[in-house]
Amino acid sequence: MSGEFTSVEDSLEKHLPPAELAEVRRILYGKELRSLDFPSDASSLAEKRDFELKGYAFTALPESVRPPRVVRVGLIQNKIVLPTQSPVSDQLEALHRRISEIIEVAAYCDVNIVCMQEAWTMPFAFCTREKHPWCEFAESAEDGPTIKLMQELAKKYNMVIVSPILERDEIHGDILSNAAVVISNTGKVMGKSRKNHIPRVGDFNESTYYMEGNTGHRVFQTQFGKIAINICYGRHHPQNWMMYGLNGAEIVFNPSATVGALSEPLWPIEARNAAIANSYFTCPINRVGTEVFPNEFTSGDGNPAHKDFGHFFGSSYVAAPDGSRTPGLSRTRDGLLVAEMDLNLCRQIKDKWGFRMTQRLDLYAESLREAVKPDYNPHIIKEH
Amino acid sequence: MSGEFTSVEDSLEKHLPPAELAEVRRILYGKELRSLDFPSDASSLAEKRDFELKGYAFTALPESVRPPRVVRVGLIQNKIVLPTQSPVSDQLEALHRRISEIIEVAAYCDVNIVCMQEAWTMPFAFCTREKHPWCEFAESAEDGPTIKLMQELAKKYNMVIVSPILERDEIHGDILSNAAVVISNTGKVMGKSRKNHIPRVGDFNESTYYMEGNTGHRVFQTQFGKIAINICYGRHHPQNWMMYGLNGAEIVFNPSATVGALSEPLWPIEARNAAIANSYFTCPINRVGTEVFPNEFTSGDGNPAHKDFGHFFGSSYVAAPDGSRTPGLSRTRDGLLVAEMDLNLCRQIKDKWGFRMTQRLDLYAESLREAVKPDYNPHIIKEH
Repeated sequence: MSGEFTSVEDSLEKHLPPAELAEVRRILYGKELRSLDFPSDASSLAEKRDFELKGYAFTALPESVRPPRVVRVGLIQNKIVLPTQSPVSDQLEALHRRISEIIEVAAYCDVNIVCMQEAWTMPFAFCTREKHPWCEFAESAEDGPTIKLMQELAKKYNMVIVSPILERDEIHGDILSNAAVVISNTGKVMGKSRKNHIPRVGDFNESTYYMEGNTGHRVFQTQFGKIAINICYGRHHPQNWMMYGLNGAEIVFNPSATVGALSEPLWPIEARNAAIANSYFTCPINRVGTEVFPNEFTSGDGNPAHKDFGHFFGSSYVAAPDGSRTPGLSRTRDGLLVAEMDLNLCRQIKDKWGFRMTQRLDLYAESLREAVKPDYNPHIIKEH
Repeated sequence: MSGEFTSVEDSLEKHLPPAELAEVRRILYGKELRSLDFPSDASSLAEKRDFELKGYAFTALPESVRPPRVVRVGLIQNKIVLPTQSPVSDQLEALHRRISEIIEVAAYCDVNIVCMQEAWTMPFAFCTREKHPWCEFAESAEDGPTIKLMQELAKKYNMVIVSPILERDEIHGDILSNAAVVISNTGKVMGKSRKNHIPRVGDFNESTYYMEGNTGHRVFQTQFGKIAINICYGRHHPQNWMMYGLNGAEIVFNPSATVGALSEPLWPIEARNAAIANSYFTCPINRVGTEVFPNEFTSGDGNPAHKDFGHFFGSSYVAAPDGSRTPGLSRTRDGLLVAEMDLNLCRQIKDKWGFRMTQRLDLYAESLREAVKPDYNPHIIKEH
């Protein structure tokens, strides 16, 4: 059933009696969120273009000193468009078209900041461990064809675009990186953020292609708020999430590519925990569908060789600093999730729960300094 | 409904059709766990003594080099027994009796390590901000009446007992601490671990009573495995969880006292995230019921003064390094949750997912060293 099961939320809504549904939702999803209404043009275009469109609003208390800072964020999850055997340039062009038509709908929905899934311009070919032709998808994070297109769209729609790509850095030894490029709503490239933690799990040994990122934990101060990008596997590392927070991020995107058997029970947990621990919004985005490759590859797990990596389960969602979250997008369809948020909530929750002030960072700076020494002696108490 | 709603799991089980229930469970709870069978003596005693008894088994792969290291852990959640106006010594004695009878059942269930809720020897009176008579519950972590009783039981049942108490340290200035005492299965006091992070949330400003702990992140190497205790609010701090892991913990208990409005949507997230991030088992335990105090107190949230802090929602559970978790104990009843676990799973998951080796601790030791400086300049990129 796993491949067809659309979502936990659909199932709960269909079967639980209203009073129990309310309790289950409160415990599993936190404070109830208002659904957003979109212009009929947006809804009908989404239907025509065959993707799910959902929207929710997170609110904050009104403040007397600061005006509300309400922004709309869009998360896009999608299948690849053409078979992986098609010429690279055709695949890229088809994905450009597909994402452009979803971003157009995001514009109708007044989205201010949009982010796509990890390496959205290509199939997630890293599982194959083949270099050719997949490395051809790599492009410059400054002026590659995808970036140029995104610059046009950003300017046209007055929208900040976060575009995760496979990056080729021609200036620095032709190295590849898994990177997200931030394009301002004026169409300027603000910079890139590279993936900090690289998985080495079966076919997911991405260090075959690229290494740990060297761009640290930078935060981009856009016109609509301070954003950062924690790419995929960095989701598993609380220290990574923490540093984006210490640099001031209010929204952290987590563009990902992950399949059910590996990580689905972790998916609702980690990005949401990060939102709570760091008093910011998190936006995990996962690709969707099954991608079939021309040649067989193995997973080192005793299974026979195969040509697909499994079902990418979508389920993109947004989590808030107060522990609430949106329902997820579908496990099976392309989708655009719009979340409206008042960024004032971040500081309000910091004030309420005080996690930052009770965090004892000095203690951990010192403990960690000790713990990383190769001869660190763990603090263990034995029975005398 | 919130006060009577027994648990999310009960609700799902009652209403979802089997195929959907399996999918929802897989996504929300991870790998399916086998239920434990207990001797009929244990079950009938639990029924007679009016507490819930549940048990589940986490398994690991068989290894050729290491034998399995199967242990049974018991989590006890309970209401206070006598009204809070009763003499302190009567309240203490009643709780001693209650916990002794639950521990006896744990022994019938072959539990090797048992842990009670935070400050289990008293009502959670810290919300009142009154010192008298609540400070009378404080006792020595070396030879107080509770510790002496726990030593007897530990020896009698060959069981490690983790006993979270309000500690009075007479040798060091009569200071109070929120501490957990670890008693070996031979009956010896191995030591104590103090609460590292102190909440300052409305009535939950516990720094009225005690300060941040000074016992660091020690791990107790018991005969049944390496354990640590992260008390209550430390649950919100990923760095705290991390340090117990870096010191080698295989099981981390999180004895807590928390109410619905404040934290219930966070409860299934944080300890489970810690289990995943640190490749160990976590055991969050919450007290249950509503405790009514003699005098009114306020919460600083605009509500009128009141005599109770709200409903402690129980829901104690165990989470495993592979992302799976047990169902929770009830939201409304006393209970004993028994989890059987092969501790070999911790290293197996470290080997599989590699979070420790991809963690880049050197990077974070350095980043944190910078970030704690009062004049730290966050890494922010602005549009030129």
